[in-house]
Amino acid sequence: MYKSMEQEITTPYVIGLDMGGTNSIFGIVDQRGTIKSQTAIKTRAYPDVKDYVKAAVEALQPSIDLVGGIQNIKGMGIGAPNGNFYTGNIEYAANLVWQGIVPIAQLFEDALGIPTRVTNDANAAAMGEMTYGVARGMKNFIMITLGTGVGSGIVVDGKIVYGSDGFAGELGHFVVDHTSAGRKCGCGRSGCLETYCSATGVARTAREMLENSSADSLLRKLNPEEITSFDVFKAAEQGDAIALDIFEFTGKLLGTACADFTTFNTPEAFVFFGGLTKAGDYLMNPLRKAYDDNVLNIFKGKAKLLISALNGSEAAVLGASALGWE
Amino acid sequence: MYKSMEQEITTPYVIGLDMGGTNSIFGIVDQRGTIKSQTAIKTRAYPDVKDYVKAAVEALQPSIDLVGGIQNIKGMGIGAPNGNFYTGNIEYAANLVWQGIVPIAQLFEDALGIPTRVTNDANAAAMGEMTYGVARGMKNFIMITLGTGVGSGIVVDGKIVYGSDGFAGELGHFVVDHTSAGRKCGCGRSGCLETYCSATGVARTAREMLENSSADSLLRKLNPEEITSFDVFKAAEQGDAIALDIFEFTGKLLGTACADFTTFNTPEAFVFFGGLTKAGDYLMNPLRKAYDDNVLNIFKGKAKLLISALNGSEAAVLGASALGWE
Repeated sequence: MYKSMEQEITTPYVIGLDMGGTNSIFGIVDQRGTIKSQTAIKTRAYPDVKDYVKAAVEALQPSIDLVGGIQNIKGMGIGAPNGNFYTGNIEYAANLVWQGIVPIAQLFEDALGIPTRVTNDANAAAMGEMTYGVARGMKNFIMITLGTGVGSGIVVDGKIVYGSDGFAGELGHFVVDHTSAGRKCGCGRSGCLETYCSATGVARTAREMLENSSADSLLRKLNPEEITSFDVFKAAEQGDAIALDIFEFTGKLLGTACADFTTFNTPEAFVFFGGLTKAGDYLMNPLRKAYDDNVLNIFKGKAKLLISALNGSEAAVLGASALGWE
Repeated sequence: MYKSMEQEITTPYVIGLDMGGTNSIFGIVDQRGTIKSQTAIKTRAYPDVKDYVKAAVEALQPSIDLVGGIQNIKGMGIGAPNGNFYTGNIEYAANLVWQGIVPIAQLFEDALGIPTRVTNDANAAAMGEMTYGVARGMKNFIMITLGTGVGSGIVVDGKIVYGSDGFAGELGHFVVDHTSAGRKCGCGRSGCLETYCSATGVARTAREMLENSSADSLLRKLNPEEITSFDVFKAAEQGDAIALDIFEFTGKLLGTACADFTTFNTPEAFVFFGGLTKAGDYLMNPLRKAYDDNVLNIFKGKAKLLISALNGSEAAVLGASALGWE
């Protein structure tokens, strides 16, 4: 009796859903950011989104029971490709089987009876950092996710910037090279930040540098088309000069871009997250130097450049779950 | 008796101060944005800021009396170089006679006994558009002021973005050319937007284009060092090809930059203000085209590109006064 009263008072849990094109990972999370229980289903296995939601609820039920039932869960947060916070919909997500507009928040609200919010994965990551991570207590920061693409979540006055349409914070598609040399981007334009500073961008840089140089490199042992950013990292750890140059180029470009981004909301910090951050100082040293070299004088020394401390595999679920507290 | 009751109920007026390095213009403004009374003093004439405030209050007194006394004034807003909204101070303004940190809001609060807010001139302009101008009712927009420099005020969720330090929204110092060809900027760096898209930037472009071309131009009659953006406008009106090219170049660059800025807060509108906007379609047509050509697909057609409709000479005072309602 005493225990259930305590639970009621603290509304102790939220559900986080990290929805990818392939897998959907659900976690039940407490206020400290501990994932009490986790489960997953295949996103692609359900051509009808209603079947997906049904399967999700079935998969979640044991976890919900484990924390004492749905009455102990305050809300649900979903991080999904093209998730729109304002509408609660997923809108025209190229990587999902469901086409057009999918009212995902409403579907889960109807199925579970708890308030449900949705946003894109980078905004969810920013929420996660603000709620459980290195940005706790910060009111103004910029989250940059360095994965297959580059995503971002911008926080102003303690709130995610969703903009006029719910899709604000697309710094991965900030054009950093407006010349004809700008790299072709999946968005149909050229020169976007993510064509350089994502994991795939690093692999592109590797291919370019290997082609334009005759220097020895461990990377020459690999099929150029199959080089990954992780291969570049491993080579850098061996002191490979070209691998080090690749991270130097990437970090410099990203640091310079962040210096420009500072003019927008003078963040207390940039928080970097995702596979590329595993490169650690190989990436962060040139990034910090380029930031300091390029930022406007009045902003010098003000922003911290941080790597997320959230466990990579859990961070997306935690980030999504953070929306559930709202 | 009836009249004074009505005035009390509507707290009818605010004071706006547009502080420049040379002149300080004060206006008493009603809720519709009508300037009921205006007065001015010389900013430079008072090496001690306390004397400046004393002179300001003396100059304001007849205007205050005119609207029925200080009890009819809700507050005061100041637009000043390097004005910091958070602290109420002017901080290290290069163009003012007072060095270091000046607690300008506190000084006026003490002298007038009404709440006083300060911000920089571009943020004040954004407040003015939101309160009385073309951005009325908008929650997300970006104000770009095109004067001697380029300033900006960014509005997210109906509030100016002041950032972590009170100095956010410095898009004039967004670097649009990171190559060695970037123009030297007064900030000590190179390639800033304002070196191209300010009135002085347009004059620089004119000098460059005249030097790099042998084509006839009305502008060749002028001393290159004395060409102004207004000269370029007058030449464009005569159909001068180089003058038209200058605005084409400027508009294209600004429109491209705005397309990139959209990734931050997906504004409902960009509002352009200042001397350069007098160029009208010469500037706005290439600007609109470049914006449409460069903006990310999902943002296409969403933002309006507007010219401020506030009377130029009154806009700065109106903008500052808008802070007085807060």
